Formats: sequence, structure tokens, C-alpha cells
Amino acid sequence: MKLLLINPNRTQAVTDAVLAAARAAAHPGTELIAVTGRRGPAIIGSRAENAIAQHEVLELAAQHAGEVDAIVLGVSLDSALWPCRELLDIPVIGMTEAGLLVGATLAGRIGVLTYGARMAPLYRELVEQHGMTARLAGVEAIDVTPEETFATPGVVQARVLEGIDRLVRCDGAEAVLLAGAAMASMAAPLQPRAPVPLLDGVACAVALAQVRHRLALPAARAGSLAPILGREVTDVSAPLAALFAGGHAR
Amino acid sequence: MKLLLINPNRTQAVTDAVLAAARAAAHPGTELIAVTGRRGPAIIGSRAENAIAQHEVLELAAQHAGEVDAIVLGVSLDSALWPCRELLDIPVIGMTEAGLLVGATLAGRIGVLTYGARMAPLYRELVEQHGMTARLAGVEAIDVTPEETFATPGVVQARVLEGIDRLVRCDGAEAVLLAGAAMASMAAPLQPRAPVPLLDGVACAVALAQVRHRLALPAARAGSLAPILGREVTDVSAPLAALFAGGHAR
Amino acid sequence: MKLLLINPNRTQAVTDAVLAAARAAAHPGTELIAVTGRRGPAIIGSRAENAIAQHEVLELAAQHAGEVDAIVLGVSLDSALWPCRELLDIPVIGMTEAGLLVGATLAGRIGVLTYGARMAPLYRELVEQHGMTARLAGVEAIDVTPEETFATPGVVQARVLEGIDRLVRCDGAEAVLLAGAAMASMAAPLQPRAPVPLLDGVACAVALAQVRHRLALPAARAGSLAPILGREVTDVSAPLAALFAGGHAR
Amino acid sequence: MKLLLINPNRTQAVTDAVLAAARAAAHPGTELIAVTGRRGPAIIGSRAENAIAQHEVLELAAQHAGEVDAIVLGVSLDSALWPCRELLDIPVIGMTEAGLLVGATLAGRIGVLTYGARMAPLYRELVEQHGMTARLAGVEAIDVTPEETFATPGVVQARVLEGIDRLVRCDGAEAVLLAGAAMASMAAPLQPRAPVPLLDGVACAVALAQVRHRLALPAARAGSLAPILGREVTDVSAPLAALFAGGHAR
Amino acid sequence: MKLLLINPNRTQAVTDAVLAAARAAAHPGTELIAVTGRRGPAIIGSRAENAIAQHEVLELAAQHAGEVDAIVLGVSLDSALWPCRELLDIPVIGMTEAGLLVGATLAGRIGVLTYGARMAPLYRELVEQHGMTARLAGVEAIDVTPEETFATPGVVQARVLEGIDRLVRCDGAEAVLLAGAAMASMAAPLQPRAPVPLLDGVACAVALAQVRHRLALPAARAGSLAPILGREVTDVSAPLAALFAGGHAR
Amino acid sequence: MKLLLINPNRTQAVTDAVLAAARAAAHPGTELIAVTGRRGPAIIGSRAENAIAQHEVLELAAQHAGEVDAIVLGVSLDSALWPCRELLDIPVIGMTEAGLLVGATLAGRIGVLTYGARMAPLYRELVEQHGMTARLAGVEAIDVTPEETFATPGVVQARVLEGIDRLVRCDGAEAVLLAGAAMASMAAPLQPRAPVPLLDGVACAVALAQVRHRLALPAARAGSLAPILGREVTDVSAPLAALFAGGHAR
Repeated sequence: MKLLLINPNRTQAVTDAVLAAARAAAHPGTELIAVTGRRGPAIIGSRAENAIAQHEVLELAAQHAGEVDAIVLGVSLDSALWPCRELLDIPVIGMTEAGLLVGATLAGRIGVLTYGARMAPLYRELVEQHGMTARLAGVEAIDVTPEETFATPGVVQARVLEGIDRLVRCDGAEAVLLAGAAMASMAAPLQPRAPVPLLDGVACAVALAQVRHRLALPAARAGSLAPILGREVTDVSAPLAALFAGGHAR
Repeated sequence: MKLLLINPNRTQAVTDAVLAAARAAAHPGTELIAVTGRRGPAIIGSRAENAIAQHEVLELAAQHAGEVDAIVLGVSLDSALWPCRELLDIPVIGMTEAGLLVGATLAGRIGVLTYGARMAPLYRELVEQHGMTARLAGVEAIDVTPEETFATPGVVQARVLEGIDRLVRCDGAEAVLLAGAAMASMAAPLQPRAPVPLLDGVACAVALAQVRHRLALPAARAGSLAPILGREVTDVSAPLAALFAGGHAR
Repeated sequence: MKLLLINPNRTQAVTDAVLAAARAAAHPGTELIAVTGRRGPAIIGSRAENAIAQHEVLELAAQHAGEVDAIVLGVSLDSALWPCRELLDIPVIGMTEAGLLVGATLAGRIGVLTYGARMAPLYRELVEQHGMTARLAGVEAIDVTPEETFATPGVVQARVLEGIDRLVRCDGAEAVLLAGAAMASMAAPLQPRAPVPLLDGVACAVALAQVRHRLALPAARAGSLAPILGREVTDVSAPLAALFAGGHAR
Repeated sequence: MKLLLINPNRTQAVTDAVLAAARAAAHPGTELIAVTGRRGPAIIGSRAENAIAQHEVLELAAQHAGEVDAIVLGVSLDSALWPCRELLDIPVIGMTEAGLLVGATLAGRIGVLTYGARMAPLYRELVEQHGMTARLAGVEAIDVTPEETFATPGVVQARVLEGIDRLVRCDGAEAVLLAGAAMASMAAPLQPRAPVPLLDGVACAVALAQVRHRLALPAARAGSLAPILGREVTDVSAPLAALFAGGHAR
Repeated sequence: MKLLLINPNRTQAVTDAVLAAARAAAHPGTELIAVTGRRGPAIIGSRAENAIAQHEVLELAAQHAGEVDAIVLGVSLDSALWPCRELLDIPVIGMTEAGLLVGATLAGRIGVLTYGARMAPLYRELVEQHGMTARLAGVEAIDVTPEETFATPGVVQARVLEGIDRLVRCDGAEAVLLAGAAMASMAAPLQPRAPVPLLDGVACAVALAQVRHRLALPAARAGSLAPILGREVTDVSAPLAALFAGGHAR
Repeated sequence: MKLLLINPNRTQAVTDAVLAAARAAAHPGTELIAVTGRRGPAIIGSRAENAIAQHEVLELAAQHAGEVDAIVLGVSLDSALWPCRELLDIPVIGMTEAGLLVGATLAGRIGVLTYGARMAPLYRELVEQHGMTARLAGVEAIDVTPEETFATPGVVQARVLEGIDRLVRCDGAEAVLLAGAAMASMAAPLQPRAPVPLLDGVACAVALAQVRHRLALPAARAGSLAPILGREVTDVSAPLAALFAGGHAR
């Protein structure tokens, strides 16, 4: 099976972390292709950057979809997840979506831990959009920038463990999702010191993408996912324009 | 007061309809500037086209924000509404948001009428994202394309009136929001034949933009709306890049 | 345009504060008529006082509706808001309703600040009745009586700022509605010292009343707002009895 | 035990029906006192009439509370239920509240049947205010006036049975609450022809009032139910004014 | 009237406490029969023990239903409540259900106090299953085992009062339900020292069972409560097997 | 990997269908062990039968857990799912849970199709307990018994397709979960004739069990999932008693 990992952030270190997490989770023999955003934000840290990044997700998806069996969005805001599902017949899975869905099989309520107070409302909104608020224990934000996590991982880890502890003690979390592509590499090393399971969205997303590939379910094609045909979208790449014109109906 | 109308669809007829509706609603003396998408979808008809259009909304907003007092998004999916609010200190108002908020002052529950069955779930999701689901009577979709509304308005009007009637009788709507920029011109002519108030999102949005301008409230700058500073976003226009770098803190 | 401000509390100082806030918000040339409750509570501080006050709101509305274009209820529990809407064809807007609706255009979640712990549940219930709970960050109560706010404003202001700070830091409020007619005069002077926009319900309500007047939407007349005809209600004033008998169908 | 039945409608036939239903449900030896509204609506048929009636409920409650052990509000909109609870230390129970609470012990979801399409939204709102929406199957309205039910009971009964049937078949009701004081006498005769239990709000309220009396729980006196002291309310009867001044703290 | 109290825990002291609470609440002349689980958990302290206990509840109910007029489940997780309702035509009432329903007649929001942090999520889920989450102030857990409450009641009482205080001050509880059969005997002695009404689930359940008996409503027999006929269930007692085979249709 | 399939129904044909569906979904090389209920209901068709079956699920799980890597509950009410998770350290996955979680990766809202009108409320409650109501389009019941599906599959298939069609057209389902172990074999043959993806809970559960095994997440051990220690449960098998005594802490 061939799996495309899309990191729309223009930061190769994030892609590398996503790829490493994916490799650890994927079945042996899975071919992983990781692509990095060429345009847009260095690291998504706001709704506005996310809006720009969605365009790039669609471009990267359109360019590579024909070569792969499934796509994982290696970006924790699940940017352009449903737009991709409208356009493509192959499975597309988001990191945070996957963390919540897998987490739902082992914990009553799931805590979400992220960097930066301004991101907390965005994750609450995302969980709400996924219709999973009933399973959310709470969102806790740690005040370090995603960039710092690559520079001083030791200090950051202590802060992350404190955040996990608050989610468990105060909010009743029975599992914690480490949200933010920059945290992708932390779940495994911190797990032994954490009182609850730590969910790595990349690993969960890769696993669900492989489930979807194996189950071979057709793409949904009713309601909001009915085939897209004859839409004229300009100033996008030829592959993306072709999808809007009806390419998924192949 | 100067008001910018952004229609990210690449269809001048939509911009013209939006501008006409805005003119009818704005205070005399309001200067209206209407801009049309240069890139992206002809008419937004899916989440994927909406994702592309959000980028264009941000570009048009960044380019013109310095010249105006407030912005109205002339696109019924309220594309890039909160991203604009993160980046700009001036009021930004969405059509559907405005229709729901004004409608809430005259009806217990509001029906939403739109074109195309595949759009109904998108409006339900949008109302949910606005936190207004408790005020939603239902979403009804009419199977004509937005393009047809410009070609055969007579036939379309009869269908619209039937849809209004279903929302009132079956779903308990006490007002109906005509969603979709293409419907902007229909509320006024159909009102005499409708049993409930018909909400035109453009008129409502223009009115709320003028309210916000008059009230002179500062932009929210806490939580997810804290100042954006030092974000590096490439392949966007210079004005938009400047906003990401901290331009709103002027 | 002629706008009626109804303060059903029997406290002229509240009416004066409401009128001042209204004057600051209204378009120049707006004629403002402010009336004060003649019967019932001095200041509404419980559901029971609110029940009594609703009767007085209806009386004052019936008496003056014929002379004005719209009504603003200058009472933060939005007393008799929907009963007025059933009886009258002109726009009627509530203070807290308006604060929430305008606040929704600039903040993800809105905090509500009020006087007296026993009032907090009433505001939570009111927000719920408005169907806006999804946009509520929280309700914070300060333990001073409304009466004190007129006597020692300096001390009270410090307490109000602390309450605002708790709503922002602990509850994620991105704007704060100062609820209670007695707070009407505080939003403007405190705004420079507050980290988020402060919403004055009177100003918001006046602005929305002017929007509704300008948009000239018909009153909703379906479902629970269908015309009231032939209802016999005794021991009310002649104008109110006339409305129950079918006066709104004029 | 002495039980006060308050019917704030100025219609003796309603009081008579309420009293008969109460007598059938009360323990032998219960002393029942039924009072009828002297001022206000003949029959409550709108939110506006309900607002007026709340005042009369408080007056009647204040006048008679000292002589009885508990109060049942014989009005299906539970008019002034919580205001009474703020002011009085004895149990006060509402008809619709009671129907929902008793119904919750025998049916997963409860249907509500009422007269007049304009009342359906009011019952939905009431159930929501009671926090019982999760147990609501639906609200069905029959287009006869409450007055007709006293004139042509035979025809009305057939319509009621049809409404019950729709609630069971289409909405999944496992019990049906006959809402509206005018329906008080119908549950018993129709029960043999109905496929589910029919809930008579009066009987349920009387039963719960007797439960509350027997359990001898103190009135709640925290939060919104903290003692009311020193409130000056004018133009109300002396007993009601005394309650506002602190009478419940006796 | 004959009332069966089922305590599926294998702990006679719990049955004794339940019986004492029931006796204090029941009408004089009520015949109370209390039975104790013979198989399964000593005290239910997890979902798994509750699953086992449900079987025993059904056995005890089937064995004794023919001799009684109503059943109260003396187990605070309301174990097998709806299964009993499917099988039996007599009223069956749960302790926590009853505490919430009676509490709803005297408090806006109800706090739940229990033993053991691991039980808190179970009560939250139970309140949700009862559709009463809108009336829940919060769930507070005290870290003593149910067993300790019988050994050192003095120390435990102080902890319980602290928990009640937190629910009132922090969560806005206006009444507190003491959840857990082991707490059944505490409400009465602690009431004088508590700021809000303390709800004893057993007393509330006995009272509601007597209400249901008096109202003589038929059992619901639609939807999920339609008659059970011809079900073959093995390895259960003869009386229970008979109910599955259609015994309730007697 | 070794996977245990537990069918607590005493019907070997159901176990066979579950096993066949599992085999089709499992990775090659997966060892599948399917066990059938020895005690309790022939086919679960009510909450009461489900209560009995939960006991048997726990017995079968306790007996076989030591030999396997994960468990799938081959019963569409997800009987004893969380009790199993409390007791065991290996992954345990429910059919309906899995269908909803996998369905959430391909459809906005999921319809649930089942046999027998009395089961519809049970599935609504189950989806609610899973916290997935926001993703539920609706529940549709077909009036054939589960037993008939094995006897006359041709006729039943037509009815199933009609039910799918109603869920898609009327309720906006974008995927349909075929609920009920008896339907396990229908998804694959009907898929070509269905307009949306058909979810087979067994296949989804097997896939998620394999995901959980591969991700090697520790079991949650906080809150309601904290280790069970020293619980005395009698009249259960030795392996189950050992789990209650602390067996999962191995």
C-alpha cells in the first residue's frame, strides 16, 4: 500500500517528524510518501494561516492522489479534510480526527493538549466540527511555541507532562491527544511517564488510513459528497482543476 | 463610511447583485466598494471550492482593508470570516451570520433555503459553527443551480416560494434566510408573497457592519483573536504577508 | 426615527443611565423617548420581580407603541421581549439579546458579568432561552448590589475589572457583556482598561433597533407569532386590551 | 394536607376541570382549595397572556400560601413556577413539569399534545426550560381552540386520539402528555383507546406536591433561590409585598 | 400497598439502610419487602460489577413482582431499570432517577455527591442516560470507600459536608443528591448542617413509586416498551424465563 | 495476532456470520477464535435480554482473554463493552461503536438501519452513549425479525435497500451502518446496489482491533478505568472472579 503524508506547513522538520511517526505506525511494506508545503505558512498558528494552508493541501493532494492508495493529513487542524473527501475517491484521514476516533476506543473522555493559548479555541471548534464534543474532557494549552519544541525538547517535555496531569486530574481525561504536528514525536518517549494513554495523531491517522484501504469501502457519494462535476476553478494546478471538472468520477 | 464588499466568486453578476442589495440597505452616504474574486471558483458549490475561495477572500481583504471602515463578505458560506477577524482590526461581517443574527430578533426559529441538495449539509455545519443551531428550524434545498437563477428567475421564484412554505409548515420556521449570494436579489420581490419575513444576508450584513462601525468597539484581542505577530507566510501578496507579520497591531 | 426605551424598574436613575447610553449610540436625529416603570419592583433582582415587571413592560409598550418606530427594552433580563413581539408589529429589541448578537460578530465566546450571585443562574437561563449557549464563555457575578453602583462607582469599577479578567483568563471570553441596566454607563469608561471589548447592552440594542427599522422587514406572523385576535384580557389598560383584541393587525 | 390549586385563567370551567382531576388524584383526606384568576386572560393562548397571568399567579399564591401546605399551578405553561419557588418555602409544582417528570418514570420519550399551532413552540420552549428536551419525542398541535373542548368534546376526542397516534408512530412517543388545562379531564376517558399512557398534568402535579410535602425537604436557599429580602415592589397586594420584603424567611 | 426494595449488592447492611430510609419515606401502612443480592458483587463499584448486578436485579424482580404493587431499585446506578420496565407492568423506580426528578421540583441545578473518583464518570453517564444533564450542576467524588461509611461515619460526614459545599459554591448546585446506596442514611442527619436540600434517592424513589401506584397509569407499551413475547432466554430462573416468554402480557 | 470474537447470543448462525465477516476483514495470518453464548438469550431483542447477555460477555471475555491479543464484541448493542475495558488490558471493540467511528471517516452523518421498531430507541441510546449523536443521521427500523434474515434473505434484502434509501433521501445519511449481528453478512452483497457506503460493524470492529493492537497503546487506567482491585464478586467463573480481584494488574 502507498500512503501519502501531506504536511502543508513549510517546515521540513515537521514533515520529518510526521514521517517518522508514520513509519513507526505503518504496516511493514507500506510505501510512505511525505510532501511538504511549498507555499503558505511556515507553521500554522492561526485560522488565517490554516485558510491559506488548505489551498496547499488541495494542491498537494491533487498532484499526488493518482499515485497513492490513501492520504494522511499531517497537520493537526485537519486542514481541508472534507474538501479532500469531496474531490477524491481514496481515503483521506486527519490527525486530530484520527486521534479522537482511536481514543474513543479506550477512554471515556479525551483531553487535548496543544501549544499556545490562542490555539485552544481552534481545537475546541475542531472537535465540535467532528461532532465529538461529548467525548472531549478539555483542551489545555502550554505556552511554548511549536518552534521551541524542536530546540529544547527537555524543558518542553516537563511542561507537557504537567499539562497531561492537569487534564487527567481536573478535567477527567482518560487519554490525552498530543495535538500539533510538532508534538508528533513526543507521545512514545513520554508514554512511560504518563498516567494515561498518549495519542499520537499521526500514528492513529496512518492506522485508520490502512483500515479504510483494507475495508475497501466506496467513497460516500450522496448529499454533500455527491460527485463534483463541471466546476470551473482557475489559478489552480492542472490536476486540481481536473478534479473540480469531474476527475473523481474516473 | 466606506464599506468593502468581497465576493470571492469569479462571477461579476453575483457581485452586481450583492452590490445592489447592499446599496438598498446601506445608509445614504455610505461609500460601497465591491470587489470580485480574480482566482478560484466561478461560483462556490462545495467545501473544496470554499477552501480555495478563502485564500482569495484574505487577499482581497488585505489589499483593501486599509481604505475602508468595515468589510462585508458577499458569499453565503461566510468564507474566511474568522481568519479575517484574526488579521484585521476593522469589523468584518458574514452574510449568513448576519442573516441569522438579525433573524434572531424577529423569529423564534429561522429556516435556511438554498440551492442544491449537496449544499444543505454545508449550511447546517455553518449554522452549527456559528453556535446558532438552537435557532435553526431547518435547511431546505431547491434543486436548481445558482447559475439558473440568473437565467430563468420566474420559474425559480415559484420553487423558492414552495421551499419557504415547507420550512414554515413542516419545520416551524418563523423567518426564512435566503442563502446563497445568487439569491441576494430575491428577498425583496418575493416578500409580499411570503408568509414570513425573508432575510437577505447581504442587507443584514451591511446593516450589522454599520452597527459595528457606529459602536466603535475595539476588535477582540484575547484568546484565539490575540494579535498575530511574526508569522511568515509566503506566496501571498505583500499586504497579506504584512498582516501575518504583525500589520494589525498598527 | 422615534425610539422608545422602556425601563420597567421604578428607578429613574436607571432610566437616565439607559437614556444616556442610548443617546451615545443612536444616529443623530433619532428621537428617544424613555419611560420608567410606575408599578412593580424598584430594581429587578429576582425571577419574581421580573414576572411583575413583565406586566409593566407590556403596559408601557402598549401605551407608547403607536407613537414610535421601534422599542428597546432597557432591562437586562429582556423582560417580556417575546410577548411584546407577539403583540406589536414594530421591532422590539432586548438589551442582553442585543449584547449577545452584536458580541457574536467580534468574539468566539462571550462572557457575561453581573451583580449578585443569585442573578448568575438567571442570565445562564436567559442565554439558553436565546439559543446562544454555544457562544457563552461563562457568567461571573460580582457581589455588589445594583444600587451600590450608583453610590460608589470607583470601588465597583475595580471589582468589575477583576470580573472581566476572570472571564477572559479562566473561561476564554473574547468579549464581555456588562449585564444589568445599572452597568449601562460603565462599558465606555472601563473599555481602555479592559483586555477585550466590553458590550453595553443598551448601545447594542439601540443599534439593532435602528437596523431593524432600516431593513423594514415585516414582523414574523407564523407559528407562535401568528396574529393575536379576539383575546379577552381584563384589568389591563385600554391600549393593551386593544392589542389582545387584535390591535396589531391594523 | 391542604393543597392550593391556582388557575390564573379567568375561566371557572377550567378551574372546575382542574379541581376534578386533582380530587381524583389526591390522597383521601387532602383538602383542596381551588382559586381562579380575577384579572388577566380568559384563557392563556400566547406568551403575552402568560406574562400577564404570572402576575396573578403570584398574587393568588401570596394571598393563600399561609393557609396551605403546597401549591399546584393549574396552568399548563407552568406560569410563574420559579418565581413562586423564590418567594415561598412550601412546595410549588407545575402541571407540565409534573407531567414530564412522572412521564420520565414510564417512557423513554414523551410526546406533548396541545391545542393550536401557535402554542407548539411555547411548549417546546417550556420543555427546554425544564431541561427535559432529551426526553421529548415531539410536540403536536391540534387546531381546535381550548374553548371548543368544552363545547364539543366528542369531536375533539377523535382529533386528540389522532394526535396521540401521530406522536407514537412518527415521533417515537412512549407516553403522551395532554397539555393545556382544558385537556385536564380527557386523559382518563381516552386512556382505554390510547396505545400509550396518557399523562394528566394536574394529577401528576398533585401527586408530586404530596410527595414533596411528605418528604419534608427544606426549600432550596442557595444561588438563584437564596432568600429574597428587602425588595420594594409596589402596586401589589400586601401579602405579596410582604414576601418581597422578606416574608419567606419566617 | 406492597413495595419491593431490590438491593442487588450482596451486603445486608446496605439493604438495612435502604429499608430504613424507605420506611421513613413510605406512607404508613405500606408493606415493604427488601431483598438482597445473592450472587454478584458485594458492593457495586464499577461498570463491570454493575453489569453482573443487572442480572441479579432481573432475577429478584421476576421472583417477587407477582407479590407487589411496585418496585424500587435500592442501588444508585439504577441497575437494570429499563430492562425491568420492559418486562413488568408494575411501576419500577430507580434511586438516582428519583433523586433527580424530585430534585428538579426544588432546584435549578442538582449536584451529585458520591464516593470514589472512579464512580464520578459513571454518574455523569447515568444522568446523561436519564436525559437530565441540563439539570446537573456537577458530580463531586469523595475518596472514601462505601465500606468505610459504615465504619467511621463521623469522619465521613465531615467529608460529605465539604463536598456539598464545593458543589454549591463552585458548581452552582441548589440541591445535592447523595448518590450511593451506602449514603442512604446520611441525608436526614446532615440536612440541618447543609446549605441546600439533600436528596436521598431511596426516599425519593419510594415516594415516586407510591405516586405511580396511586396514579394507576398503564405501563407504556409502544416503541422500545412494546410487549416482550416469545423470547427464549436460558439459564435464568423460571419466573424470569416466563417474563421473557410473554409473562407481562398477563 | 489472535483475535477473540464474542457473540453472546445463543445462536450459532450469528456466530458463523460474524466469523465470516471477520475473516473477510482481518489481515491474513490473523487467528480468529469465535465463541457463542451458552446462557441467556437466543437473540438479543430487548434491553432485558441485553442485560442478561452482558454477564455472558464478561464470562466469555474472562475465560479467553489470556489467550488473545484483542477482543471484538460480535453483538450490535456493544453489550458490556466498557465493563470489559475496565477489567482487561487488551483492546476490546464493539461492532456499532466501530461502525460509527469508521463511518465518521467517510460520511458527515451516518444512518443506522436495524430490524424491529422496538430496537430503534435502543440504537439511538447507544449512539448517544457513544457520544456520537452529532454524527447520526437517523435510525430506521425494518419490521422483520432477525431470525427471518436467515430464512428469506431475498425478500429481506429488498426491504433493507428501501430502508437505506429512506435514510439517504429523508435523513441526509451519507453512509449507512447495518446494525444487528444478523445483518453482518449483508453489507458486501448489497453494496453494489446502494447509493452510499454500507458499514458492516464486524468488519469495522476487526479492523479497529487490529489498529489498537498495532499501536500498542496502554489501556487507560485513570478515572473510571482505574485498576479494579480487591472486588469480591461471587457466582461467577474463577477467571472472572480473578479479574475482579485484581487480575488486570498483571
